Amino acid sequence: MSHGYETGRLDLPFVGHCTFGKRPVCTDLDRIDADVAVLGIPYDMGTQYRSGARFGPRAIREASTLFSFGHGGAYDHEDDLVYLPMDKVRIVDVGDVDMVHTDTVKSHANAEAAVRKIIKSGALPVMLGGDHAVNIPCIRAFSDEEPIHIVQIDAHLDFVDVRHGVTEGHGNPMRRAAEQKHVTGITQIGIRNVSSTAREGYEDARARGSKILSVRQARKLGAAGVLEQIPAGARYYVTIDIDGFDPSIAPGTGTPSHGGFLYYEVMEVLQGLVKRGKVVGVDLVEVAPAYDPSGITGFLAAQVLLNFLGYIFAARQS
Amino acid sequence: MSHGYETGRLDLPFVGHCTFGKRPVCTDLDRIDADVAVLGIPYDMGTQYRSGARFGPRAIREASTLFSFGHGGAYDHEDDLVYLPMDKVRIVDVGDVDMVHTDTVKSHANAEAAVRKIIKSGALPVMLGGDHAVNIPCIRAFSDEEPIHIVQIDAHLDFVDVRHGVTEGHGNPMRRAAEQKHVTGITQIGIRNVSSTAREGYEDARARGSKILSVRQARKLGAAGVLEQIPAGARYYVTIDIDGFDPSIAPGTGTPSHGGFLYYEVMEVLQGLVKRGKVVGVDLVEVAPAYDPSGITGFLAAQVLLNFLGYIFAARQS
Amino acid sequence: MSHGYETGRLDLPFVGHCTFGKRPVCTDLDRIDADVAVLGIPYDMGTQYRSGARFGPRAIREASTLFSFGHGGAYDHEDDLVYLPMDKVRIVDVGDVDMVHTDTVKSHANAEAAVRKIIKSGALPVMLGGDHAVNIPCIRAFSDEEPIHIVQIDAHLDFVDVRHGVTEGHGNPMRRAAEQKHVTGITQIGIRNVSSTAREGYEDARARGSKILSVRQARKLGAAGVLEQIPAGARYYVTIDIDGFDPSIAPGTGTPSHGGFLYYEVMEVLQGLVKRGKVVGVDLVEVAPAYDPSGITGFLAAQVLLNFLGYIFAARQS
Amino acid sequence: MSHGYETGRLDLPFVGHCTFGKRPVCTDLDRIDADVAVLGIPYDMGTQYRSGARFGPRAIREASTLFSFGHGGAYDHEDDLVYLPMDKVRIVDVGDVDMVHTDTVKSHANAEAAVRKIIKSGALPVMLGGDHAVNIPCIRAFSDEEPIHIVQIDAHLDFVDVRHGVTEGHGNPMRRAAEQKHVTGITQIGIRNVSSTAREGYEDARARGSKILSVRQARKLGAAGVLEQIPAGARYYVTIDIDGFDPSIAPGTGTPSHGGFLYYEVMEVLQGLVKRGKVVGVDLVEVAPAYDPSGITGFLAAQVLLNFLGYIFAARQS
Amino acid sequence: MSHGYETGRLDLPFVGHCTFGKRPVCTDLDRIDADVAVLGIPYDMGTQYRSGARFGPRAIREASTLFSFGHGGAYDHEDDLVYLPMDKVRIVDVGDVDMVHTDTVKSHANAEAAVRKIIKSGALPVMLGGDHAVNIPCIRAFSDEEPIHIVQIDAHLDFVDVRHGVTEGHGNPMRRAAEQKHVTGITQIGIRNVSSTAREGYEDARARGSKILSVRQARKLGAAGVLEQIPAGARYYVTIDIDGFDPSIAPGTGTPSHGGFLYYEVMEVLQGLVKRGKVVGVDLVEVAPAYDPSGITGFLAAQVLLNFLGYIFAARQS
Amino acid sequence: MSHGYETGRLDLPFVGHCTFGKRPVCTDLDRIDADVAVLGIPYDMGTQYRSGARFGPRAIREASTLFSFGHGGAYDHEDDLVYLPMDKVRIVDVGDVDMVHTDTVKSHANAEAAVRKIIKSGALPVMLGGDHAVNIPCIRAFSDEEPIHIVQIDAHLDFVDVRHGVTEGHGNPMRRAAEQKHVTGITQIGIRNVSSTAREGYEDARARGSKILSVRQARKLGAAGVLEQIPAGARYYVTIDIDGFDPSIAPGTGTPSHGGFLYYEVMEVLQGLVKRGKVVGVDLVEVAPAYDPSGITGFLAAQVLLNFLGYIFAARQS
Repeated sequence: MSHGYETGRLDLPFVGHCTFGKRPVCTDLDRIDADVAVLGIPYDMGTQYRSGARFGPRAIREASTLFSFGHGGAYDHEDDLVYLPMDKVRIVDVGDVDMVHTDTVKSHANAEAAVRKIIKSGALPVMLGGDHAVNIPCIRAFSDEEPIHIVQIDAHLDFVDVRHGVTEGHGNPMRRAAEQKHVTGITQIGIRNVSSTAREGYEDARARGSKILSVRQARKLGAAGVLEQIPAGARYYVTIDIDGFDPSIAPGTGTPSHGGFLYYEVMEVLQGLVKRGKVVGVDLVEVAPAYDPSGITGFLAAQVLLNFLGYIFAARQS
Repeated sequence: MSHGYETGRLDLPFVGHCTFGKRPVCTDLDRIDADVAVLGIPYDMGTQYRSGARFGPRAIREASTLFSFGHGGAYDHEDDLVYLPMDKVRIVDVGDVDMVHTDTVKSHANAEAAVRKIIKSGALPVMLGGDHAVNIPCIRAFSDEEPIHIVQIDAHLDFVDVRHGVTEGHGNPMRRAAEQKHVTGITQIGIRNVSSTAREGYEDARARGSKILSVRQARKLGAAGVLEQIPAGARYYVTIDIDGFDPSIAPGTGTPSHGGFLYYEVMEVLQGLVKRGKVVGVDLVEVAPAYDPSGITGFLAAQVLLNFLGYIFAARQS
Repeated sequence: MSHGYETGRLDLPFVGHCTFGKRPVCTDLDRIDADVAVLGIPYDMGTQYRSGARFGPRAIREASTLFSFGHGGAYDHEDDLVYLPMDKVRIVDVGDVDMVHTDTVKSHANAEAAVRKIIKSGALPVMLGGDHAVNIPCIRAFSDEEPIHIVQIDAHLDFVDVRHGVTEGHGNPMRRAAEQKHVTGITQIGIRNVSSTAREGYEDARARGSKILSVRQARKLGAAGVLEQIPAGARYYVTIDIDGFDPSIAPGTGTPSHGGFLYYEVMEVLQGLVKRGKVVGVDLVEVAPAYDPSGITGFLAAQVLLNFLGYIFAARQS
Repeated sequence: MSHGYETGRLDLPFVGHCTFGKRPVCTDLDRIDADVAVLGIPYDMGTQYRSGARFGPRAIREASTLFSFGHGGAYDHEDDLVYLPMDKVRIVDVGDVDMVHTDTVKSHANAEAAVRKIIKSGALPVMLGGDHAVNIPCIRAFSDEEPIHIVQIDAHLDFVDVRHGVTEGHGNPMRRAAEQKHVTGITQIGIRNVSSTAREGYEDARARGSKILSVRQARKLGAAGVLEQIPAGARYYVTIDIDGFDPSIAPGTGTPSHGGFLYYEVMEVLQGLVKRGKVVGVDLVEVAPAYDPSGITGFLAAQVLLNFLGYIFAARQS
Repeated sequence: MSHGYETGRLDLPFVGHCTFGKRPVCTDLDRIDADVAVLGIPYDMGTQYRSGARFGPRAIREASTLFSFGHGGAYDHEDDLVYLPMDKVRIVDVGDVDMVHTDTVKSHANAEAAVRKIIKSGALPVMLGGDHAVNIPCIRAFSDEEPIHIVQIDAHLDFVDVRHGVTEGHGNPMRRAAEQKHVTGITQIGIRNVSSTAREGYEDARARGSKILSVRQARKLGAAGVLEQIPAGARYYVTIDIDGFDPSIAPGTGTPSHGGFLYYEVMEVLQGLVKRGKVVGVDLVEVAPAYDPSGITGFLAAQVLLNFLGYIFAARQS
Repeated sequence: MSHGYETGRLDLPFVGHCTFGKRPVCTDLDRIDADVAVLGIPYDMGTQYRSGARFGPRAIREASTLFSFGHGGAYDHEDDLVYLPMDKVRIVDVGDVDMVHTDTVKSHANAEAAVRKIIKSGALPVMLGGDHAVNIPCIRAFSDEEPIHIVQIDAHLDFVDVRHGVTEGHGNPMRRAAEQKHVTGITQIGIRNVSSTAREGYEDARARGSKILSVRQARKLGAAGVLEQIPAGARYYVTIDIDGFDPSIAPGTGTPSHGGFLYYEVMEVLQGLVKRGKVVGVDLVEVAPAYDPSGITGFLAAQVLLNFLGYIFAARQS
């Protein structure tokens, strides 16, 4: 009988160090031997309103321990599947990128170097922001790889070119991505309400091939309809700004925008995406725990990531 | 003219002691003379993540005062009914079970004894948790009664048999219930995402006759469809884990799980249930006010209970 | 190239004084020269549960700075429109009404006088509560104008006539409005659950011509169906109690009620309303920031008002 | 052996209804038979900054349960005394005064009537505010008694006569008291920093016989020195504004003022006072739990009151 | 009779826009005509732990309204003085420096330019941080003035030269200041516990003429003794890091350090300082409201600044 | 020049995993090779009021990262010493004891076994609670060692023998310790106000050789005087209940008691103690982060422990 974890510890969620999903740590980026490498990028100098996303990686790690029940993977009764079996999907937590306060260039360079090492190791890179500016070095790190298509879940288009000299803040990442040769296009989902991107940014994005969907447009299409807007058979880099979700479930973020996605609306797109092509990189950004007193934003981030990883590896195995 | 409560106090919601619905207190369990007896069970040693549900009864009582407007019952314009008229439905607040810290066996024994006394008095027992482990003594207290069918609203299956010797924590209550002779079956609604119950727990539950519905499955069926899954004409014991609701409306709980029920989805099932059989016991558990800074989880618990009681007695009277 | 705001400041949302939408201040009510005048009424002596709405105006102003990106108005990609272009819609923040603590009569008189001055200036009056009692002087201030129809978004009917002598608390405003000659009717939307208005209040409201819709009734009708319940071609005064929205997005309020509206459900009614008649006054009340630790209630209020103002002036221009 | 409370319940602090010190309830003011009667006055319409003191009585009651350990009174090892033995000092919680929102006159009248009834019963009246305006009816209620001297612990002088017609707000109570024939004088301790009382108020107070001490002046005098400033052998009414204490231990109040008293500085004055004359009335005001997220202000209020009551009855017994 | 503010508004603290001390706004830095100009510098990219000081200026402005009672200045009964009479000390709030996210160089340049303009106007510059890095441009702005001596109240020495290329973060300001020709020395008070400055930084500081006092050393010396350590007759620039105060009264800051100053300990040094020389500039930094749920850190900052300004101008007038 | 950490990372406090002091992890208790081993015991079933201390270890670890500046140890300018040089004092974080919910006996047994292994390794055991009940297995683990004297910093005596069968809750640890043969005596410092220990507990403690000091008694004696009460030349086990400190600096705990110690009062006793004998074990308990919204309690715990460890090893080296 295996009920009692007789051979080891009970290891309740509140017990022990906070690593992502309570998985092992490997801070030597040259020695990663895993299927997934989770990297924190605690940068928040790019934000235009509430700062604090530098504590996003810690909050997500702590929240992820809630979902670390059991020793044999996560059973989902709706899909009748055990996701992320410990012996088959090796996840490691590779720690955080070194940050240099006051210096965006160095911080981004450190992030890019770290992601390049993860890619080189063959593990799936999963980055925990930090504000959305951290996506810029992440995308750059793929410059030597096969082309990627970006799927963005976000309230904001983040397509500002340059303003007062700023090119690498949290309003710029999708514009920076669109300039990269290895980025073949962007699907931008959840975009709504006023933001730092003005009309010209939307026109620019469309001109560069972006497909833009609001929450209501995505809702009307349904998950299947949304998936049809995304090129099939591509290599996907998925960037999830937690403010793509509704403030009711993601209050702890710098620039909340009402009218966002509820949980399953996003998850069903992600679950479909893993069957439509190959997910080669993921970031989840803008969790700011100082504005999340009940912790639900951290739980959302952890739950989204762990389930998304489950989908990805279930698809790879089948 | 009766507008002015001329014969008494205005008694605004923020005024006065916090008893459930501002109803009278009767702490002598041998002298209950009422239709409903509300009992707190402030136990939280069974939780596997965030503790604090021991303050659930106090939080629910305080929140319930918001809904104590008026002296003549609660008018619902959608149903055109006055629910819980003070002169017809006598609710008493019988206080809390005596807790013995460090000692689950004694605490549960005290709870069981108290519920038995309520049952004996003829009042409907309504228990305020505490974590979900408090359901174990509550169900046991019905062992001398006619059989019951359990309707559970919850994010988690709570069907762990034993692990590291633990049999009466908050992951075990439905397994314990299923072992009781006087429990004819369980309908488990809202179950989703990873939890302490592994695959074998689900198989065990189904083998013992449980009907398991996820939020999305329940949503697809609608309230009427869900009700059809519940045996008709039974005596129902309803156990509501507040985490069956979505974290957006129930953040103040120990183990939140995104993707939960919204308010009316549950209420419409409860409203239908009272017409399908007889509700003979209710518990509402896992409210942890330390994680509920805006108080909305407490308000949810109070609003659910007061409306559910309204439905129950309206059905009995009609 | 206009990307860089070269001729001025970047003026990020977190920078600068908190005026509504970062628009100019004009505290001399005799010299308003604007299309919209935003006035705070920081009164909370009318509330029957949690006080604190006196800080509503400050919270809404601070939150509104998040939506002040850009210098040329707010581009909405769903409507492909730039709302509230700075050069075409002149909004001024006229500060707060002088409050006299302990004295409702004087405070209301000051509010009424201020709103009269705004009306006289020709600007659209937009009032930030305060609790819902502030609606009473606002409506009175229209007594010399053409008749108005009131559209109320609220969880509570607020139709108590008098109780213990109280006639001007936050449970009374719609009853007071219904007595005014210049009020032709009221559409009351979102009404649900128990409140200070008893059955007789509902009967009174209907007898005086109110149309009452619960959230579920409104949801079933859809925005278009709701709009049909509102007399066409009228002059509308819109009063938005933030508790008309669901506690998941509006926890920071005095008397939350579960089962409320989500964001777009209300916005689509408001967007339709501006095409059905002329909006001549707006108030948004009951934001209590002490119960809004993540700030999302303030953001909701600001987002609703700025978008609603956008709709109103887009309709006037077209 | 008496260790185990064998004849009853363990009754841990977190268990049971929140009455003051978990003492019995007696809401019929005509039947009080006790040494102390604790009355809540949940009024906060008199405040000039942050409201919320209406929830002071509930917060103090809840906090007081922490100090309800044991069944036989509270042993203090420094004094080697058991204070408040249950069988010798009978405390009852008489509930709250009925409040009429928007109406200060009626609310104050209700408070005065209630305090009169307590006085008449022979019990020591202990009032829980509410803002400091509630002191006005409390003092009036003593008009038929032997004269009293008021000892005020406060950051603010509260000696405003009238401003904009306001005479009974929280800036007025000591001025109102000074006008009463039965008030022989006031000792005002802890007064510091700017407040609503201007220079003329201080002059007025001194002219009417007040003795005013700042925190630093009191600290320099020491407890014994402060006591010498208070007329000996009098009947004392003690009014404690929680903001007399430092914001470090009393953050949860409407108008915090840095540089306040620490715990023992006040307690030693109170402990000396009970030997200098007879304490005939007590109020503790301005606890606003919405600004007290860690609960320490409530604990301070409860700890001060329970210890002060202990001193009073120990002095009476000796 | 002047009691009633008959000629104007009551203007309670919670009413109206949040400008510093409710004083007038003058955002045109070329037209300042005042004795004091208060400038926000909402920069927080220099912090090494918790960010959020960018909202410091807004928090201090909001808190300062609590101390805006009365129309004729602030009466202090201990000193028997009316400080800051409105007609004699003209304070203006000149708004915030324009910030450029991701770009420390530009943000600091904007701050320096703004402070230069205030100096040029002849007004006393008072800067609200932002993190302590904002002191760097403030000190530079004095390069064309007569030499200054810096008096620093702080837990941390902030004397790091350069580390990983960082020279203008919040650990560097005093080192940067010490390099300036117009800075004749620094008195560093309150320094304690571990920080980013290592042993070599202390040696460097002392070599460059700094006088360093811990809290306990300052406490032993007393205010008079501390003042003796500061060169007499100088022009003082006072920089107050709120973390120089104890976390008990200043929890809302990025890098709290236990064992700090209590309120009067600092105020008595500041009150003495104004008699020892001329205060020519002030900044108060590191208030981070996201970590200040009860608001007391903001109140501390506002109370310190308003009283310090009172001392400065009382000294100038006498 | 070593300023720039050229050979490695800047490693700011907010970057990286949360281990104690950012020191290395060693979860294999059989392979500890260090001077200090830090162990979490996340147990909170022993508390009699607010639970949540199970998250104490995580909160202390996260807070401790603030004090991990620099790579070469912590320079203290008051003592002119570099404490805890990384190359000389090897601290490891050995993770948490496995907890078994509902089961105090097993949880305590696990804790005892873990502490025994640390002792066996030769490292100084430092335990992070959890509530004070965790001290019971910690003390037991020393049963095979040379005798120890316990120095307790606490608000409460914790000397209850048995009540309702409870012998191992957080009110019992000092009574349990006093029964151990290897415990030669207890010095109990900071004891004040009412608690679960009744008069008989005090008598029992004194009879068994305890020396009891209240905060005021300790304050009057001074650090030197307090130290004289402690037997010289002994092996000390120091147990620090965070509620020994004042609620102003330690609000985040289960049973706060006003009138506690300020920071240096305790630190000076600890600094003296290391010279008076040998510290052989340390625990710090009762940090409950759910009640610590500004985080200062966690910072206090981390600052106390890191400085105490610095004192201990500086004494050993000298």
